[in-house]
Amino acid sequence: MSKTGTIYGVGLGPGDPDLMSVRSHRLITNAKHVAFFRKAGRKGQARAIVDGMLPETAIEFPMEYPVTTEISVHDPRYNEALSAFYEEVTQHLIDLANSGEDVVVLCEGDPFFYGSFMHIYARVRDVVPTHVVPAITGMSGAWTATEAPITWGDDVLTVLMGTLDEEKLTRHMADTDALVVMKIGSNYDKVIRALKASNRYDEAWLVQFATMQKQSVKKLSETTDHGTPYFSIIVVHGQGRRP
Amino acid sequence: MSKTGTIYGVGLGPGDPDLMSVRSHRLITNAKHVAFFRKAGRKGQARAIVDGMLPETAIEFPMEYPVTTEISVHDPRYNEALSAFYEEVTQHLIDLANSGEDVVVLCEGDPFFYGSFMHIYARVRDVVPTHVVPAITGMSGAWTATEAPITWGDDVLTVLMGTLDEEKLTRHMADTDALVVMKIGSNYDKVIRALKASNRYDEAWLVQFATMQKQSVKKLSETTDHGTPYFSIIVVHGQGRRP
Repeated sequence: MSKTGTIYGVGLGPGDPDLMSVRSHRLITNAKHVAFFRKAGRKGQARAIVDGMLPETAIEFPMEYPVTTEISVHDPRYNEALSAFYEEVTQHLIDLANSGEDVVVLCEGDPFFYGSFMHIYARVRDVVPTHVVPAITGMSGAWTATEAPITWGDDVLTVLMGTLDEEKLTRHMADTDALVVMKIGSNYDKVIRALKASNRYDEAWLVQFATMQKQSVKKLSETTDHGTPYFSIIVVHGQGRRP
Repeated sequence: MSKTGTIYGVGLGPGDPDLMSVRSHRLITNAKHVAFFRKAGRKGQARAIVDGMLPETAIEFPMEYPVTTEISVHDPRYNEALSAFYEEVTQHLIDLANSGEDVVVLCEGDPFFYGSFMHIYARVRDVVPTHVVPAITGMSGAWTATEAPITWGDDVLTVLMGTLDEEKLTRHMADTDALVVMKIGSNYDKVIRALKASNRYDEAWLVQFATMQKQSVKKLSETTDHGTPYFSIIVVHGQGRRP
């Protein structure tokens, strides 16, 4: 009987393949089975990052989300559809591991920092061997792109999702030194109102496609582009003690 | 006249050399000049991480802190001593760059996320060419070590330094989903009181030497070790929406 394979959650980092870890690079360039999430009809951002890195013999398993924006996240059917989807793809990964195959699951950013891999991880960690490779977060790529430190001394850093309600966004924005806002997309207007209400708007930077060729870094107040991609990140730098 | 060299702020990640980025790895294994901070009389953690990676011909420039714990950070002499130190080491790096040499400055964790490199960066960025390579943060190494995601859905993440006052620690701990506390060391007792007052103590994990051979991961409530090293990290996981 063959040895059980391992499911690897492999962090890809913010987008530039040169910024993935040596371990992630090695696992990807030697992968036999590669799984990745994508929207139906798209190539998938995770898959795009590893273009040219996979062995020719690698067997690819695209995991296509059943829902995107047509069902509200507050509709119970959203969770039901996603849950069934995760169960289905997870079973395939478990079957591969049980047949002795290692599987590399590509994860944008850091696997344990928001993101979708954790929904697989929660379902497989007690069933087959797993190994998670951390990575540079998208927010780290974003603050590096602004060419200024995000935190100094004993600055407080708060990370907020644009999907939060406006009152909660405003309260947290007002009560922190450094600030990162992600998942902006359709929440753009709400996030802007909260930044203004908390008096952080003038210090805020908008970073799009951090570390990638089409990277864009602007003061938010100088941005005219309201069609903000989902993977944009807003950064407000801390101003702590500095000798 | 020779071309001006570049000062590279090279993030090393949380400690395991296998987790540094491909770019950091390449810069380090090809370095001609390597600078790193350390306490007087110590080898230095950053230097230790790259053991065996530097070219034999690399010229090392240890930058030894003039003060550690014998002067309070609130004493003006602390800032004066540190400021003079940063000016001095920075001038050496600028001289090297002006003579055409590239310099790799080793940075534990991510260069722009707390840490000392930014004090160099602020003094050289307008003088000679610079390039900052982000890295996996120590906190990412820590939450990966707990084998559980730090944030789900729209969880709020707050990062706090143990050097903050107890009231501020308690308030922020009570008003977040996921939590990371760093710079614990001599602030251990205060941090524990704040975790208990904010009702987060029972969920908290203590991670020491994340990703390194002597890594230790424990529920804080099961920890008897009060001699907590400075680089310990406390992690409280978010419990957000999960399909």
